[in-house]
Amino acid sequence: MVSRDGAAIRVSSLLVDGRLLGFIFILPFFFLRLVLLPSHRGVCLRHQRRSIYTRRYRQNSCIISSESRAISRYVLRKFKTPDAGTNNLLRDGDLEGSALVDAWLDVEALLYEPAVHAVFVQHRVVPALGGVPDEKVIGESVEKLRKVLEVYEARLGERRYLAGDDVSLADLSHFPYTHYFMGMPYAAVFDAFPRVRSWWQDLMARPAVQRVAAMMDGQ
Amino acid sequence: MVSRDGAAIRVSSLLVDGRLLGFIFILPFFFLRLVLLPSHRGVCLRHQRRSIYTRRYRQNSCIISSESRAISRYVLRKFKTPDAGTNNLLRDGDLEGSALVDAWLDVEALLYEPAVHAVFVQHRVVPALGGVPDEKVIGESVEKLRKVLEVYEARLGERRYLAGDDVSLADLSHFPYTHYFMGMPYAAVFDAFPRVRSWWQDLMARPAVQRVAAMMDGQ
Repeated sequence: MVSRDGAAIRVSSLLVDGRLLGFIFILPFFFLRLVLLPSHRGVCLRHQRRSIYTRRYRQNSCIISSESRAISRYVLRKFKTPDAGTNNLLRDGDLEGSALVDAWLDVEALLYEPAVHAVFVQHRVVPALGGVPDEKVIGESVEKLRKVLEVYEARLGERRYLAGDDVSLADLSHFPYTHYFMGMPYAAVFDAFPRVRSWWQDLMARPAVQRVAAMMDGQ
Repeated sequence: MVSRDGAAIRVSSLLVDGRLLGFIFILPFFFLRLVLLPSHRGVCLRHQRRSIYTRRYRQNSCIISSESRAISRYVLRKFKTPDAGTNNLLRDGDLEGSALVDAWLDVEALLYEPAVHAVFVQHRVVPALGGVPDEKVIGESVEKLRKVLEVYEARLGERRYLAGDDVSLADLSHFPYTHYFMGMPYAAVFDAFPRVRSWWQDLMARPAVQRVAAMMDGQ
């Protein structure tokens, strides 16, 4: 693991989750480095074993993507197991299930992460660069997050997870920046939403998530 | 057609595109109203013919989504034809093709639309509400758009469309707000990017896009 960037962690946490767990042991260079190394500028999806070990990437012979949710979808489709069941984190082949995963992935990308990420930047990145956090931006972002969490609280009153009764990519995609956020003083905004807290504890109880969280924390 | 909201237009333009063209004639109430009517707050994906005609929506019996890209994916999967070919706008079943569509859809959602939408809000929405457009926001957004267009110009030098040599949802998803943007004085930002202009003209030349554009323009 060479990166603590949220997008890279989104992808790597999938590699550790569920049936994909094995890959972190079997293919530490074959995939994790592939995903994480190219300066976070792109990922070669049509990978070649040789190019991976030599860390050379030929753009003409592969697809380049830096969008972590698209990479996550690709990884899940590439390494899906025949008996996917609840490990079908995209609900591929399930018309309504996949629509729900798509919808909540979009909510996470367009509403949830912008709020959490803005706080992360002000609280962690700006001071690291010698600047002073903009408290106004933090306050506005926490307020935006509170409104999103109201929607989540209602949704999680209907279903155990965002896209249904089983965990999906839509849930796991929240992991990287939420884990960082929970270590900040603003995490108290979650206290008013018991179902969201319970959902988050469920996600954090997953062994794969715990492994990646430990890596994020430098353990 | 009851809405000029960009997200609703994203979905409706799909219904008019390619093999889905027929649905606008066959199912004007069966789907367009379904997609567009519920005050843009949600779409019942597990629709029932009866509930559509009576305009009643029972949340317990259907999936609610207000994310237009997720709805677009659903519509394309629901109404795909056996001989999809180039009409497979999601490249479903094509591991690398679908990864490219996913990646460029994310670029559109996370980088392109926020810039164009911010200008749209300032130039069209704020004055309509009696306010004064914030020129600083407009200037910063146009500058962000210029940087995104640099990436598009390079990409469109490699392939005819964003996700490959055939049109995909990733291209068509740009249509609603770009059509509005092209009618604003800031459209000149596109002039420095001849491949992007050519790509846009290709999209606008599609009969289905022209039909929806005419509806957007109130014709």
